[in-house]
Amino acid sequence: MADASVKNGHRVGNGTPADKARIWGGIDLGGTKIEAVVVDARGEVLGRARHMTPATGGPGEVVKELYGTLDEASRTAGVKPVKLAGVGVGVPGSVDANTGMLSHTANVAGGWDAPYPLASDLGDLVGGSKVVLGNDVQVAVAAEYKLGAGRGYRSVLGVWWGTGVGGGLVLNGVPWRGQGSAGEIGHMVAKPNGARCGCGRRGCLEAYAGRACMERKARAAAKKGEKTVLFDIMREKKRTRLSSGVWASALKQKDPLATRLIERAIDMLGATLASVINLLDVEAIVLGGGLGSRLGPLYLGHIQDAMHPHLFITERKPAMRIAELGDLSGAIGAALLAGPRM
Amino acid sequence: MADASVKNGHRVGNGTPADKARIWGGIDLGGTKIEAVVVDARGEVLGRARHMTPATGGPGEVVKELYGTLDEASRTAGVKPVKLAGVGVGVPGSVDANTGMLSHTANVAGGWDAPYPLASDLGDLVGGSKVVLGNDVQVAVAAEYKLGAGRGYRSVLGVWWGTGVGGGLVLNGVPWRGQGSAGEIGHMVAKPNGARCGCGRRGCLEAYAGRACMERKARAAAKKGEKTVLFDIMREKKRTRLSSGVWASALKQKDPLATRLIERAIDMLGATLASVINLLDVEAIVLGGGLGSRLGPLYLGHIQDAMHPHLFITERKPAMRIAELGDLSGAIGAALLAGPRM
Repeated sequence: MADASVKNGHRVGNGTPADKARIWGGIDLGGTKIEAVVVDARGEVLGRARHMTPATGGPGEVVKELYGTLDEASRTAGVKPVKLAGVGVGVPGSVDANTGMLSHTANVAGGWDAPYPLASDLGDLVGGSKVVLGNDVQVAVAAEYKLGAGRGYRSVLGVWWGTGVGGGLVLNGVPWRGQGSAGEIGHMVAKPNGARCGCGRRGCLEAYAGRACMERKARAAAKKGEKTVLFDIMREKKRTRLSSGVWASALKQKDPLATRLIERAIDMLGATLASVINLLDVEAIVLGGGLGSRLGPLYLGHIQDAMHPHLFITERKPAMRIAELGDLSGAIGAALLAGPRM
Repeated sequence: MADASVKNGHRVGNGTPADKARIWGGIDLGGTKIEAVVVDARGEVLGRARHMTPATGGPGEVVKELYGTLDEASRTAGVKPVKLAGVGVGVPGSVDANTGMLSHTANVAGGWDAPYPLASDLGDLVGGSKVVLGNDVQVAVAAEYKLGAGRGYRSVLGVWWGTGVGGGLVLNGVPWRGQGSAGEIGHMVAKPNGARCGCGRRGCLEAYAGRACMERKARAAAKKGEKTVLFDIMREKKRTRLSSGVWASALKQKDPLATRLIERAIDMLGATLASVINLLDVEAIVLGGGLGSRLGPLYLGHIQDAMHPHLFITERKPAMRIAELGDLSGAIGAALLAGPRM
């Protein structure tokens, strides 16, 4: 165990030998990055790591990188992946919990068209630990419900605003998964015959509010000669994509294109959130995801201004909270899926 | 009891003395008509009556007419209202089940702005029987789930397409009411900054698909000189409003205005239904209400054509069923609310 608790030459983690039955791994596969954690039975994070999601190489490369990130997080916690009692993976797509197959994968590069046996492929690398899959946003919302911004409510809508726009529901204390694919708030129709979405359909909320679609729109506008600092900031930050940080900086500089696109996104987000509240009448909305966490604190009022005119029950506005577990909600939620009962 | 079982000079109902503990009343308050039934413990209809909803006089007149309709249905079943074990009322608005107060009443004429003590006012007329309130569409969907088109499914969205557009949810066998006002599918945003709805908001589904809003649009078009047979048919049928039957006749005659307005309604309905499926992933949709029951059989394919392009999980389309209990689903569901456990 001595070797496992040493990383980059310095000792990390708590150094105590890991009890296999009481430590779990959680991995969050995102469009731009992979987060992994190792947690104890109370959901306390003992180790963590972050890698970039491979932009080329397809599912095979992604599985290798999922394992690499988990391995690093495990070593930080002073344990090898094979010692984990179980591993959960939050994935951006539809999950068949029985077969461990992933399908309808969005916002991860290349080769995911057919259902993919992610649980079994990753299980081969992990060794002895059982691997279970869950939808990335559903597990993140479950984590916020149990440990974060959703505590104290019985019914919560989680909205993960990032590369795409995902959603997760907890209804009367129980995650609502429908037939396995509930929560696709990003593909609710925000505007009939509207903008083309990354999913190929028209008018989805994500076509207006997803960071990938917003970037596409920004690139088209810049190409047509519209002035913007978005791509200068991207280069300064040594990014190849318009990250949440790039958007935040451009908005701080009052860049007109960035401001216009964010306001368009917020209008659509607000109207769609109101639609969900009118349909489900839940108590609270938890806003997470890269853009949600980064812009939420500043733009929460704007989102509410866009939502409130459409609420049917005007005297009972839903509570609106920013996710508290930050970048780790997905990974922690994935770990909770694997084992710890709280 | 002999008198009570005689109506308009001929004997109706089963004529056996009513057992107070085993017979319930149900009333459905609609924008145009009031339906009442008396049912037994299995939900079998023993008596029924239909009156028009008073267009003037406000809540006081409506309560009197609710009682009159229940009285007639009871006599048809050979019983007096006071002998009923309980009375349920389905109302077009939000209900506080504890206080019996009705609020946010839509599509019923005059004087409903403040919360109204409907259960207690009607209880005074009924006498000994307990009166309970439920949302009209929620109780109708519960009836279809237990006795009608929703049998065999665990999770159902009911859409009541009529004067307004209402919705009701059964999730994993349990009605989902949220904090009391869930199911307002008619006030989901179909189009940002869209048409003005009867509720005062903009772009609601009901602004396009609700019969009241469609009539307003038709009247405006006719006033501008657009040709239509809608109002000729209305006069022939001796109606003052464009009823579902009027719309059906005009569509049969391929009236261009009626066709255009129905197609617009169906486009919005289809996109909104897809949004709900993407969010909740329920197994089945039950289509009811005046327009739903009347036009559903002919237009179900059109609605699916409008819905399917927006479904995120394309290989698992929801079952789509027309309500089977017809005009009585609301009244039967209201009666179920009052007592019979099935």
